[in-house]
Amino acid sequence: MNEDINKIITQRPFPGSKKVYIKGELHNISVAMREIELSDTKDFDEKEIINNNITVYDTSGPYTDSNYKVDIKEGLPRLRQQWIIERGDVEQLSEMTSQYGKDRLHDNNLDAIRFKNHIDKPLRAKENCIVSQYHYAKQGIITKEMEYVAIRENQNIDYLNKELDNNNKGENFGASLPKSHVTPEFVRSEIAKGRAMIPANINHPEIEPMIIGRNFLVKINANIGNSPTTSSIAEEVEKSVWAIRWGADTVMDLSTGANIHETREWIIRNSPVPIGTVPLYQALEKIKGKVEDLSWEGFKDTLIEQAEQGVDYFTIHAGLLLHHVPMTANRLTGIVSRGGSIMAKWMLMYHKENFLYTHFSDICDILAKYDVGISLGDGLRPGSIYDANDRAQFAELEALGELTKIARDKGVQVIIEGPGHVPMNRIKENMDKQLKDCLEAPFYTLGPLVTDIAPGYDHITSAIGAAQIGWYGTAMLCYVTPKEHLGLPNKEDVREGVVTYKLAAHAADLAKGFPGAQVRDNAMSKARFEFRWRDQFNLALDPERAIEFHDETLKGESYKSTPFCSMCGEHFCSMKTTQELRQLAGKGPIISNKELEKKLEEKADEFRTSGSEVYK
Amino acid sequence: MNEDINKIITQRPFPGSKKVYIKGELHNISVAMREIELSDTKDFDEKEIINNNITVYDTSGPYTDSNYKVDIKEGLPRLRQQWIIERGDVEQLSEMTSQYGKDRLHDNNLDAIRFKNHIDKPLRAKENCIVSQYHYAKQGIITKEMEYVAIRENQNIDYLNKELDNNNKGENFGASLPKSHVTPEFVRSEIAKGRAMIPANINHPEIEPMIIGRNFLVKINANIGNSPTTSSIAEEVEKSVWAIRWGADTVMDLSTGANIHETREWIIRNSPVPIGTVPLYQALEKIKGKVEDLSWEGFKDTLIEQAEQGVDYFTIHAGLLLHHVPMTANRLTGIVSRGGSIMAKWMLMYHKENFLYTHFSDICDILAKYDVGISLGDGLRPGSIYDANDRAQFAELEALGELTKIARDKGVQVIIEGPGHVPMNRIKENMDKQLKDCLEAPFYTLGPLVTDIAPGYDHITSAIGAAQIGWYGTAMLCYVTPKEHLGLPNKEDVREGVVTYKLAAHAADLAKGFPGAQVRDNAMSKARFEFRWRDQFNLALDPERAIEFHDETLKGESYKSTPFCSMCGEHFCSMKTTQELRQLAGKGPIISNKELEKKLEEKADEFRTSGSEVYK
Repeated sequence: MNEDINKIITQRPFPGSKKVYIKGELHNISVAMREIELSDTKDFDEKEIINNNITVYDTSGPYTDSNYKVDIKEGLPRLRQQWIIERGDVEQLSEMTSQYGKDRLHDNNLDAIRFKNHIDKPLRAKENCIVSQYHYAKQGIITKEMEYVAIRENQNIDYLNKELDNNNKGENFGASLPKSHVTPEFVRSEIAKGRAMIPANINHPEIEPMIIGRNFLVKINANIGNSPTTSSIAEEVEKSVWAIRWGADTVMDLSTGANIHETREWIIRNSPVPIGTVPLYQALEKIKGKVEDLSWEGFKDTLIEQAEQGVDYFTIHAGLLLHHVPMTANRLTGIVSRGGSIMAKWMLMYHKENFLYTHFSDICDILAKYDVGISLGDGLRPGSIYDANDRAQFAELEALGELTKIARDKGVQVIIEGPGHVPMNRIKENMDKQLKDCLEAPFYTLGPLVTDIAPGYDHITSAIGAAQIGWYGTAMLCYVTPKEHLGLPNKEDVREGVVTYKLAAHAADLAKGFPGAQVRDNAMSKARFEFRWRDQFNLALDPERAIEFHDETLKGESYKSTPFCSMCGEHFCSMKTTQELRQLAGKGPIISNKELEKKLEEKADEFRTSGSEVYK
Repeated sequence: MNEDINKIITQRPFPGSKKVYIKGELHNISVAMREIELSDTKDFDEKEIINNNITVYDTSGPYTDSNYKVDIKEGLPRLRQQWIIERGDVEQLSEMTSQYGKDRLHDNNLDAIRFKNHIDKPLRAKENCIVSQYHYAKQGIITKEMEYVAIRENQNIDYLNKELDNNNKGENFGASLPKSHVTPEFVRSEIAKGRAMIPANINHPEIEPMIIGRNFLVKINANIGNSPTTSSIAEEVEKSVWAIRWGADTVMDLSTGANIHETREWIIRNSPVPIGTVPLYQALEKIKGKVEDLSWEGFKDTLIEQAEQGVDYFTIHAGLLLHHVPMTANRLTGIVSRGGSIMAKWMLMYHKENFLYTHFSDICDILAKYDVGISLGDGLRPGSIYDANDRAQFAELEALGELTKIARDKGVQVIIEGPGHVPMNRIKENMDKQLKDCLEAPFYTLGPLVTDIAPGYDHITSAIGAAQIGWYGTAMLCYVTPKEHLGLPNKEDVREGVVTYKLAAHAADLAKGFPGAQVRDNAMSKARFEFRWRDQFNLALDPERAIEFHDETLKGESYKSTPFCSMCGEHFCSMKTTQELRQLAGKGPIISNKELEKKLEEKADEFRTSGSEVYK
């Protein structure tokens, strides 16, 4: 590992923004947020009116804190270490449990790529203890993680009470969406009902806790993963840092190449967001891709290996059953889930039931010891519009509902994965059925793509479906990049995919009427109307692209305060005309303009009563 | 004009595609379509199964016909010239009616940039005649234009009857969406009811007729326009050719710079799609941007000037009334429509009613003489989420309903423009109110954008809203490019915007259950499942990007038939695994696989009855 390893990591703060930390009330915690500074409004008399800074939800972790010195060889501060220990229900093991983990640890050839502060003595729940947030919530305990996410969800709450217009509160699809702001007790109760999950492995103390549930902000996941021909470990870490910079709330590491055990350690130790995996991929990798050699024992060792490294949630395809496979025979695109097709092949080879199903109870027992959440995989999600909402898909969904019950009985947090490819008119059926069959467990969907005919633009075909299903109640959206169906995403594709999903998730928050969600839109629109260009850039989901696009046409600092833009030019700028119009009529300030309204109405009344020129 | 002028024009055919022409049954017409050739499927025994070619709707005109030699100095063939003449209700004028048009024609300084085959003797309806498609439809006449669009809407109709699955027909939001295929009589009746419009100025005989209505395929519009610092005339023509290549159904020329009269002539003479304009822009340009100098007389001359050049539809902001202006006083972003803000300013300056409203009947009399359609502008569309669905917006919409009645009485075809910025949960209200207030006239919306916070990605924020409102019944979607709110779109932005809107419109067609819409999706999915990479590219909305993205990871001809792709690699390819799985179980062909189903069910039954290993 050379000394320049940190240079690969993107760590600049966002323009016009700083990191702020908000204190807890129940607990001694500090919640990281991003504060965007706004410039003042100048009214017609050049009087300055202050625009308060706004705080926004921030997934980027310490990497955008100018006071933090990044060193990925050290890893992130272990924020939750003390929280976990002080609950008194965990023990530190003397060594790793997984045989594979031990073998890797004692292989000297791997010393060069091994993370220095490797967790070699993982934590595990004490005998007869369950350490999941779900378990605590059921006991009535509000953990530090719960208060953390409560504060985090309350972005812009001060603005909210002042600004949010009754007319704009929208329909409420969330049965119990908080009416004013999110309280720690609300968080606890949603988790206790199984409606929400805080993915937070006790061996991943570096995370800034986040919550996945339909009565909270809609979250997004980005997938990363090394391929056989990969890149350095620092580049792998950078992939996740890059994804969270643009807004990924969780990152799934879907690596299938070499040294994935060691790479994963680097990623987890440097990740402030929960990490998810599909353990089946590594289990299969270990047996060189031979599906027939898959076994419960090998899979179990992989589960424990990854749980003790700190993976926060596992996708497990336990609901795809042997009798479901024939249901796919007349599909246009068969089984498109990697995990699903692997398990289907295994089942057919042996004509045995899916071992992830037969051992599901054992799986839950393991996961409850580390608080690894289960994301129940949809091995039979449709891979084409034609296959959407078919019997195969829904039969598996019903099986996932049964598994949800079992996981909850074991104290494990559960979310449910969903499609896929679905035309718009059939999306809501997915959401409704999922809520009903899976006891309101959070839904986590891939898109869905609303048409198959736009490869190269599938971040968009899927964002259309994602925004809708998010509005209907999906808690987390798995991103899709422009390279979907075509090739491996590069860095710019990841950014494009993450920002696209961030805007879709935000559109869903607005449509659901989530408290405070609209504050950033309002700030943007006000800045736009007042030609505060810098503020517009800083408020954008992707400030760097906004600046770049603006400067393509009008470059230079002087154009950052020009009261028009390049689209229409000076004579045709409607915003400028409206401002002039208000000035013409009322001479009042731009913002609150009761006088203008009154004067205009006087004139309008005059006109209407005279009636001489009205079209008849 | 140099001789290389045609080199600027993009004219290559789409890969794997050829132009085909389908004959009419009622009339002697040939309807242009694009046929995509598909390669054969190889089943497990290497037996080849034929995939029929599919025909798709094609907006690109002769430019993608390899048998056509493009010469923009000559312009396109005047396909409809004879159709118009033979109806016997038009006369050829001895000269242009517009004074401005005459002045330009006789200005020798303009000879160098004047289109050679300039229409200097335009057509106009004879005394007491109305020449609109609406008028003909009301008389019970099925015009050639009507049969043309009927055939054009029936893409893939042969496939439809064979393939379309009952399970996939979707909900039907269109009250009278054709059940099997579109007939010429259905086209006539929809136009007669005012539910659809064929924009087809008698002075634009070059168009391949198309229809805008909610019981037809959803259409998209692309805006082009020169700016003061522009580019050559050939580049302006190329802008529209480029936009229709990617799928624009109509093009609005929003030029505000120099020589727009002459440039427009070049665009129209070379455009196979209808051209729309906002005549107010040119009217204002003629008086050097001084709003106070706007007058009915000046505007009227511009209307006639453009109608005699062949503009197919005009956006006219006639519904924004004086008493509406005060309703915008407390808006966050005031009036964001250019036309709207100009008229509001004019009204306030004089405290007079909008002259476009007071002269609306006169406007209709002019338009009926040339069959120029009216697109009633929404001068008060919301420019921010905050302002969505407010009183100002809806008051104007109600006024547009009144104007719709007047236009119909005059025999003029009408469509209605809509928002703008609207959160997802408030979109449907727009559609429902528009249909009710405006007597089911086709709706034509700009997006709507479902959030304000993603400048640089507003083609996506708006496509989310556009797909939804298209599904709900909007007939045409006006595109938005990634540069919206930031700067002027370049060529790649136009392509990105058009393809994004094309996929949104197609997603709406699928959701509405439009006959035949899903055939292309099915063909794509089948090609995907069978690793026919070339077919996937050729079926894509943007074949060139699909190839480019694929080749970034796996370049070379050998990878065009590889049974896996770069995303997951060979061991993890779910499609490949499914195929192996089908082979393993049934040894049957890939496609119709009753045997496989039977065998799998036998095995599954065996398993279920034995029950020994089921999870309990």
